[in-house]
Amino acid sequence: MAKPIGIFDSGLGGLTVARAIRTAFSTEDLVYLGDTARVPYGTRSAGTVVKYAIACAERLLSSDIKLLVVACNTASGVALGELQSRLDIPVVGVIEPGARAGVKATRSGRIGILATAGTVASGAYERAIHRENDTMNVFARPAPLFVPLAEEGWVTGEVPRLAARRYLGPLADADVDTIVLGCTHYPLLSKTIHEVAAELLGHDVTIVDSAQATVETLTDILTPTPPGLELPGSLRILVTDLPGQFGFAASRFLGQPTQGLDIQAIDL
Amino acid sequence: MAKPIGIFDSGLGGLTVARAIRTAFSTEDLVYLGDTARVPYGTRSAGTVVKYAIACAERLLSSDIKLLVVACNTASGVALGELQSRLDIPVVGVIEPGARAGVKATRSGRIGILATAGTVASGAYERAIHRENDTMNVFARPAPLFVPLAEEGWVTGEVPRLAARRYLGPLADADVDTIVLGCTHYPLLSKTIHEVAAELLGHDVTIVDSAQATVETLTDILTPTPPGLELPGSLRILVTDLPGQFGFAASRFLGQPTQGLDIQAIDL
Repeated sequence: MAKPIGIFDSGLGGLTVARAIRTAFSTEDLVYLGDTARVPYGTRSAGTVVKYAIACAERLLSSDIKLLVVACNTASGVALGELQSRLDIPVVGVIEPGARAGVKATRSGRIGILATAGTVASGAYERAIHRENDTMNVFARPAPLFVPLAEEGWVTGEVPRLAARRYLGPLADADVDTIVLGCTHYPLLSKTIHEVAAELLGHDVTIVDSAQATVETLTDILTPTPPGLELPGSLRILVTDLPGQFGFAASRFLGQPTQGLDIQAIDL
Repeated sequence: MAKPIGIFDSGLGGLTVARAIRTAFSTEDLVYLGDTARVPYGTRSAGTVVKYAIACAERLLSSDIKLLVVACNTASGVALGELQSRLDIPVVGVIEPGARAGVKATRSGRIGILATAGTVASGAYERAIHRENDTMNVFARPAPLFVPLAEEGWVTGEVPRLAARRYLGPLADADVDTIVLGCTHYPLLSKTIHEVAAELLGHDVTIVDSAQATVETLTDILTPTPPGLELPGSLRILVTDLPGQFGFAASRFLGQPTQGLDIQAIDL
């Protein structure tokens, strides 16, 4: 039997990454671990996030995974090196792919980043972009309200627009032409972000979704499913807490109902 | 030496309770524990919150406290009974006092509750209010966006007003005359909540702050500081994580700068 791909995130946002992987590599088996008992990572110190990331990775290793995707931007920013040096399997984060896609998309060399406070403070996107091309100008801005807005499904209308206007203001002042969504929750707001950015800047802006960018990276490691040969892979979901609103939030990120899915609550 | 009062909360919001206790009982020594590595509790399952609450209480017991204040509404809602049966000292939650103050304030017998999803789901306010007076009509509504708005200090202006309008709509439809703020973060938004509620209802509404109500309960247990005899008590702050924005958020809730305070990061 083929080994599964392991994916972890602080919570359920990383299901947007699982969804993108399933779409591109539909025969792969996935094991997703959402650390819902300790979400969010974005407001925690680097030391704490590293400790949590190691615990998640070790739990997934016990499912004999062949590849680990760190679907959490905060954990990718502070714990990727540590995980890569500890694990014998490939470990892929979401920041390098997002940074690479941003560099590829920009014409002006001015790239905006929207991310959690933890990811912004880590400077991980700046470093990743400058490793690609050190002439780039990078402007990173935390957008803390986007997480609860995405979780509540409050993704269009006046409140998300006003929040977007507040967070995008400094990026518009910096005259960016590309914005990387550096948090797995933000793609749910991408329509609003796109419209408000274009309004503020007076021209179109490229929005880079790091989940999509990560899937493109995986094509270097995995073989895409040949058309017509699909035998759909399985998806197993492990969570460290299973609150009442779980199904509601999970189905938003996964883009499908959670009924019939294999969901298991575990202790870490 | 007099024993200190122990206070815990999922994060820093409970510092609003510590602040109210310090104002009323200025000679008391306080030890505050903020479980900042696992905040928020409001989105977790009851079982997980009980486990976390016991860990917080046990840590504070090692500081030889004489009284425990559970400053977290979510933990008060699901773990108070368990803590009271385990501990030999008085354990005071924030829900009973808030419920009692709500019952005392209402004229129409129609009380609204704004709280986290976890507190609303627990039904703890309904039960506490009905223990006081079973003829009361209680309408509880989660207001998840208020937490990040309070933490960001985004407490006035169009976005908090629109969020308040969304959350208060159902309470206005229910024609309440009193609203209990059932989350330690919400008092920072109380001006906006008060204004929007009055706007929607067309008349004034009493806003009950459960932190203040809890301090009133403590007067049954503690002796208020006699005027002129104040020797200020100490405040020790323990946190399970110390992220970069800690001082910024803590000083908002405490209403004073955090420089010079005794703050220590601990493992639970």
